[in-house]
Amino acid sequence: MIVHLNGRFLADRDASISPLDRGFLFGDGVYEVVRAFDGTLVEAARHWTRLARSLREVRIPGGAFGAEAMSDLARWLLEENGLKRGHAIVYVEITRGSASPRTHHFPTAGTAPTIFAYASPFVPVDGHRIHGVPIILAPDERWGRCDIKSVNLLPNAMAKQLAVEAGAWETVFVRGGRITEGTSSNLFAVIDGVLRTHPTTHAILGGVTRDVVLEIARSSGLTVDEAAFTVAELESADEAYLTSTTNDVMPVVRVDAATIGGGEPGAMPRRLGEALRRLLYAGRAAGG
Amino acid sequence: MIVHLNGRFLADRDASISPLDRGFLFGDGVYEVVRAFDGTLVEAARHWTRLARSLREVRIPGGAFGAEAMSDLARWLLEENGLKRGHAIVYVEITRGSASPRTHHFPTAGTAPTIFAYASPFVPVDGHRIHGVPIILAPDERWGRCDIKSVNLLPNAMAKQLAVEAGAWETVFVRGGRITEGTSSNLFAVIDGVLRTHPTTHAILGGVTRDVVLEIARSSGLTVDEAAFTVAELESADEAYLTSTTNDVMPVVRVDAATIGGGEPGAMPRRLGEALRRLLYAGRAAGG
Repeated sequence: MIVHLNGRFLADRDASISPLDRGFLFGDGVYEVVRAFDGTLVEAARHWTRLARSLREVRIPGGAFGAEAMSDLARWLLEENGLKRGHAIVYVEITRGSASPRTHHFPTAGTAPTIFAYASPFVPVDGHRIHGVPIILAPDERWGRCDIKSVNLLPNAMAKQLAVEAGAWETVFVRGGRITEGTSSNLFAVIDGVLRTHPTTHAILGGVTRDVVLEIARSSGLTVDEAAFTVAELESADEAYLTSTTNDVMPVVRVDAATIGGGEPGAMPRRLGEALRRLLYAGRAAGG
Repeated sequence: MIVHLNGRFLADRDASISPLDRGFLFGDGVYEVVRAFDGTLVEAARHWTRLARSLREVRIPGGAFGAEAMSDLARWLLEENGLKRGHAIVYVEITRGSASPRTHHFPTAGTAPTIFAYASPFVPVDGHRIHGVPIILAPDERWGRCDIKSVNLLPNAMAKQLAVEAGAWETVFVRGGRITEGTSSNLFAVIDGVLRTHPTTHAILGGVTRDVVLEIARSSGLTVDEAAFTVAELESADEAYLTSTTNDVMPVVRVDAATIGGGEPGAMPRRLGEALRRLLYAGRAAGG
């Protein structure tokens, strides 16, 4: 795999970060994951806008990481890795750079951020979409700024591992009795005929796929409400879906022991039709 | 600087971490910072016990990182860097290792953790101790498991930077109206004659220096209460102190705009006398 590190393209085994990088010492960085299909980045503008916001919120200088530069970088990585056909993902991480001695406070103003990026093949999870997936719930113990896509992901990693061990697809967090989001996804539910999901507060990451689904749902005439729902509302929902860059729209058929929608995937993706498929499934043939 | 990385001792400029290390991608690791004086580690057993607990809580296999191995490693680093005389600190970080492809859930069982460690000279902050330091307050937006000494330190770094920009020594967090702890320290206050600090819940890191101060205070006959105090109680406290491995016991003389103890360091360290100096100031001559 050819990766990008601070302006250089090199083999992943040759790519090396200083252990004094603040990404390694403090998780002091932000990231994005972008889908690509046949060499075209999916919703790149939204991802780079969010990246710029994350950088701004954590006060990492973002001047060198504008949308055009990021799209160029992503396309180079696709090219270099023979990923101009089919599905791929591009990962980009930017940290506050490397400085010595280690201090909690920011390093001196001239310290260059570290940028690391790679592209890898991606296999869409279509099979799971046919039958839907089980999820589990866990207390949301994450920090108060989940709207920032930072690499402080230990609680997400710990919670996702619980899902794997439970044979579930994802762990979804509960804060104050209400669903916030998954470890790397947003959660939608159809409750009393209304498509609901948590509003974009500091408690969740405003997912790109979440935004796309909301837009298509509204323009398709569905009743949509960005209002958090309780665990009980979820358990008795008619339909539920995880959304994320890698999941697209994934039907949820079980939440812990509760069956959702009779254990069958709901109708929402079908009702959103071609627009959803075209935008989310990144060019796959309709009906696929 | 000679550092340690996964069993090898090498120059820091030659030490390289894979950017696919989970420390870099997820902040998926834990750490300790230990003081040393004249080659002797200070309260090493407590640090290694806490390290073992952190590893256990985040489920990183800790078998290779027992107390004896860690003390040996620390002493090697002091030796290799000519730090057997005077003050030094030893930093040790252990992550869940490097694995590809990137997944939130844990890598396969055989994945080796990454261990990185270094020793560096340390200059005690004695000058500041004479006059005391100002601190500022900030909302505690950290996650719900601050008892784990993980490298998910972005909120701590952001908050410490605010202190630097305000000309303060430390930022202390407030949750639900009560003081939890500083970005890299615990906070004590003498309120109505009682030495108080936040109890060791999931909301704070149980500091080694905090524990030592509590033990000495109790054995010295001071009235001690591990009970959280409010911002108002702090602002009207007779004395306040930050404690940490690098601060020892640091008098606080101002909290935002409020003056503590008439703007002069309090008497607590003096009242705890020789035992405190010997244990905390790591061998410095009495009265220093």
